[in-house]
Amino acid sequence: MNQIDTHDNYEIVAMELAALERWCQGDPSGFLEISAPDVVYFDPFLERRLDGLAALTRYYEGLRGKVDAPRHEMVAPLVQRIGDTAVLSFNFNSWGGNEDEYRWHCTEVYRRSGETWRIAHTHWSLVQPDGA
Amino acid sequence: MNQIDTHDNYEIVAMELAALERWCQGDPSGFLEISAPDVVYFDPFLERRLDGLAALTRYYEGLRGKVDAPRHEMVAPLVQRIGDTAVLSFNFNSWGGNEDEYRWHCTEVYRRSGETWRIAHTHWSLVQPDGA
Repeated sequence: MNQIDTHDNYEIVAMELAALERWCQGDPSGFLEISAPDVVYFDPFLERRLDGLAALTRYYEGLRGKVDAPRHEMVAPLVQRIGDTAVLSFNFNSWGGNEDEYRWHCTEVYRRSGETWRIAHTHWSLVQPDGA
Repeated sequence: MNQIDTHDNYEIVAMELAALERWCQGDPSGFLEISAPDVVYFDPFLERRLDGLAALTRYYEGLRGKVDAPRHEMVAPLVQRIGDTAVLSFNFNSWGGNEDEYRWHCTEVYRRSGETWRIAHTHWSLVQPDGA
């Protein structure tokens, strides 16, 4: 298991946290700026995968200003390195303005090009331990 | 976008389909046989990520014989290649014995070692277009 024990891995977690911080204030640009042109994207509210940054941008621009989750936490981040690929996975808990709790699983596949890491694949999902 | 246009990519989709075929008959061994020792795993019924093949084996053995989904389909598979990494993503629709429909998103990160591909990361989730 590749725990978080290298400079690159810390850098990736830091990139993700910075983008999440903006996301939770309603600003999707943090993720858009670090996603690759060929990014593909899943979240539970989409019937199908989004393919490509243009599609993700259209979707995220529709959500701009609508997320407000000042309280949130990344839990148990893990980075699996395979050459120029870093697979970051974590649990994410967030609370809306009325303290509704959302519990997420997240997978982010980062790809290195030169000195730059970009997200090539995103998968967000909701935890449903009751099978709901 | 890396569409499915190489021998390796066809091989990966074929591996996944073969494992799914067994899974839908209640046999988890198809996935266990092609998962790496350091595989990590998310599905919506688990609060937390499972880390490692031993943990996944314990979980899957508890489900042996309990899945019966003769009707199922993989939709829109896409393989993103990054060196020795292949990120396979697809929608998956399955129907239980009483025709209950389940709609899934799936991400599988395959890692090549020599001539062998193994799953290093699995993320299954349920589509919830109504935000339920």
